[in-house]
Amino acid sequence: MSKISKTPQPPYYAVIFTSERTEGDKGYGQMADKMVELAFQQPGFWGVESVRDNTGLEITVSYWESLEAIKNWKENALHKVVQDKGKTVWYKRFALRVSKVERDNFFEM
Amino acid sequence: MSKISKTPQPPYYAVIFTSERTEGDKGYGQMADKMVELAFQQPGFWGVESVRDNTGLEITVSYWESLEAIKNWKENALHKVVQDKGKTVWYKRFALRVSKVERDNFFEM
Repeated sequence: MSKISKTPQPPYYAVIFTSERTEGDKGYGQMADKMVELAFQQPGFWGVESVRDNTGLEITVSYWESLEAIKNWKENALHKVVQDKGKTVWYKRFALRVSKVERDNFFEM
Repeated sequence: MSKISKTPQPPYYAVIFTSERTEGDKGYGQMADKMVELAFQQPGFWGVESVRDNTGLEITVSYWESLEAIKNWKENALHKVVQDKGKTVWYKRFALRVSKVERDNFFEM
């Protein structure tokens, strides 16, 4: 099964989250799975692509219908708890970028 | 050293490239390193973040000053050769999305 999101026609929004983790899992994997599950229940959520390597580097890109949908997700109560824990426990550093997808191009062999 | 790009104040552009590879390296790693080296020589290139796992899934996000800088990179002669080879040899499927970063947020422990 493809791990690439089937997003609709642009424009739509992408949240690009690049992170470097502290040592050890400390419940991170389980939390990440839970957050994806929760995101799929959000209105205006259009998918997520995520890659993690064994050095603790990760890029997760989530796709959204609107800035409002992103704001609602940011303010989700459970997600807020996780955001706080991210800064104290899991992440050494991260960058979060909110962007508007203007065009896209899909290829399949 | 951080693998997160130190991009300037928004707005700027992000090219989100998510791919699933065919089996085996077939010169992919070497080409990818070469492309990063070449991108750094492009006007308006502001950095790249890339994560690859051992299942062949990869997300690479490159940052650019303008749509014109992205277009010039797309049309770079050596890059064009690599794009063609990507479709015939390296990639099972991919999605390429051009987006405009409207806001960002950096965290460091």
